[in-house]
Amino acid sequence: MDSYQQIVLASRPTGAPQPENFRLENGPMPVAADGQLLVRTRYLSLDPYMRGRMSTAKSYAKSVEIGETMEGEVVAEVIQSRHPDYRVGDLVQARTGWRTHAAIGVAGLRRVDPTLAPITTALGVLGMPGFTAYAGMKVIGQPKPGETVVVAAASGPVGSLVGQLAKLAGARVVGIAGGPEKCAYLRDELGFDATIDHRAYGLAEKLAEACPDGIDVYFENVGGPIWQAVLPLLNRFARVPMCGVIAHYNGGGGAEQDLLPATMTAIVRKSLLLRGYINFDFVDEHHDAFLRELGPRVRSGDIRYREDIVDGLEQAPDAFIGMLAGRNFGKALVRLA
Amino acid sequence: MDSYQQIVLASRPTGAPQPENFRLENGPMPVAADGQLLVRTRYLSLDPYMRGRMSTAKSYAKSVEIGETMEGEVVAEVIQSRHPDYRVGDLVQARTGWRTHAAIGVAGLRRVDPTLAPITTALGVLGMPGFTAYAGMKVIGQPKPGETVVVAAASGPVGSLVGQLAKLAGARVVGIAGGPEKCAYLRDELGFDATIDHRAYGLAEKLAEACPDGIDVYFENVGGPIWQAVLPLLNRFARVPMCGVIAHYNGGGGAEQDLLPATMTAIVRKSLLLRGYINFDFVDEHHDAFLRELGPRVRSGDIRYREDIVDGLEQAPDAFIGMLAGRNFGKALVRLA
Repeated sequence: MDSYQQIVLASRPTGAPQPENFRLENGPMPVAADGQLLVRTRYLSLDPYMRGRMSTAKSYAKSVEIGETMEGEVVAEVIQSRHPDYRVGDLVQARTGWRTHAAIGVAGLRRVDPTLAPITTALGVLGMPGFTAYAGMKVIGQPKPGETVVVAAASGPVGSLVGQLAKLAGARVVGIAGGPEKCAYLRDELGFDATIDHRAYGLAEKLAEACPDGIDVYFENVGGPIWQAVLPLLNRFARVPMCGVIAHYNGGGGAEQDLLPATMTAIVRKSLLLRGYINFDFVDEHHDAFLRELGPRVRSGDIRYREDIVDGLEQAPDAFIGMLAGRNFGKALVRLA
Repeated sequence: MDSYQQIVLASRPTGAPQPENFRLENGPMPVAADGQLLVRTRYLSLDPYMRGRMSTAKSYAKSVEIGETMEGEVVAEVIQSRHPDYRVGDLVQARTGWRTHAAIGVAGLRRVDPTLAPITTALGVLGMPGFTAYAGMKVIGQPKPGETVVVAAASGPVGSLVGQLAKLAGARVVGIAGGPEKCAYLRDELGFDATIDHRAYGLAEKLAEACPDGIDVYFENVGGPIWQAVLPLLNRFARVPMCGVIAHYNGGGGAEQDLLPATMTAIVRKSLLLRGYINFDFVDEHHDAFLRELGPRVRSGDIRYREDIVDGLEQAPDAFIGMLAGRNFGKALVRLA
């Protein structure tokens, strides 16, 4: 094998990304310089934040340029090592992007131990999405016993852990997800107290019924109509960790009238806390505790997770587009041959 | 004197309050029961929160009912005492409302010591507005040396202390106020680094010029167009204490399009913290420190304040309406004969 494949950003989407915004390219196999590793991707993670990198809007991270490799995190296998600390066959977690192979330095590389948990968990429940859920609840949400916690996109890799962490904290958990299959999973497998299918009629009414004591923590990763249903139910001193507003990433979610004054007024009147974050904000302080607390619970099956895996790098754009539309069921991953 | 006067809520305003929403009434002088005090109001405080109590919107406090006394805080003098701990002539701070006299119990009553500072400060810089500024900056804003702090309604009782506290913390302070006279006061008397007249053309451009390094703390007590000018300038990890959105109290401030998605997206992308509060939220933990830290600075003239006093209870509605429109210059007070 003397060539590798990658997917580059062909053009910037104006709304929802389309297949033509991506292009599959071949190139000569990268060469590991002295001190580097040549790695082969085993799994590529697909995550909502990638939509942000496709546009030029000011953000915490720079945009992907046209013609550049799509950014992303992978679990990869070392196939050639020019560094004394790594051997062929070692597994690492790295930000190589949407590509089959890469030559990388070892700074900041995290090893993946396949004996501790399935290696895909390094991209999901024990990886960035899991830590996003953990940090948001630990630092911002802080649910107390008997409080009501609502999480949207609840069957996704972040939402499903948010709900399970809230249950562990003794809270009542209401999950919002798309379709009866996902709702059944949340109730029957993850032990959520109530679920709401956002595709069904009457979201606001159903949410109000499911939250007779109001909402104390709303984990926001969606925005749009779900926020509108949540807002009137928030209790005084409610906390809103915000790690994403996927409904707005494609430029959508705007209403006919200005909904901002109602949100601003509610923040003041109900002493609400809204706090945006990305998982990196809390890595230094909380990542060790995250692995220490959750690793054993994942291995024991105490905390559950679900994956939605497609095969082949060429499937990544379609799977990504589907994930933004909520068509995945579990952590979206691409398995490379 | 055998009668007292009060102002009651005659009807609920639909937009900006009008004189006809208030009614001046006379009644027989209240009688102090055993253990109570009869007090005579010296100063009545006019504050933006009162607009909220005039409407039925769900809030942290219940609405004033039609025909009930308008709510409010006063400094009053004891003119008859049926409680052993109080004597005629003692000064107290109480929530008796817009009235000349009241018979009150002593639970929760705060004494006002006229030898420590002018008694009006108990309603202003050393009272609820001052504590609102202090708590918002201490608990939420937390300005650091070299950071940029922006405050709107900057010449008001809350804003002017916010700015002075930010200066004491070593931050660069930009104040937004209505008209050149207020701006000159902020610059020349309070030492603000820059001021912006929100009545002049080009608020967003002027604010951007005044904040070349972005904004780290925005003390929100206005909402509306000022928030729109602030939002793009907020730095990563900016903090936004929110104690009011006066632009929205009268039901105004809505734009032609939905401005909520842009705010929600910015919260996530820039890891912003928005936190609403009322001063009561922090009284238990921070009020003693507030008086201890600021009392001496007010007495020494190190921290300055300004008052806008009208005479006579019958002037209260007009003065209140004017304050909501920004026509006061300093803490709005009504002096009673």
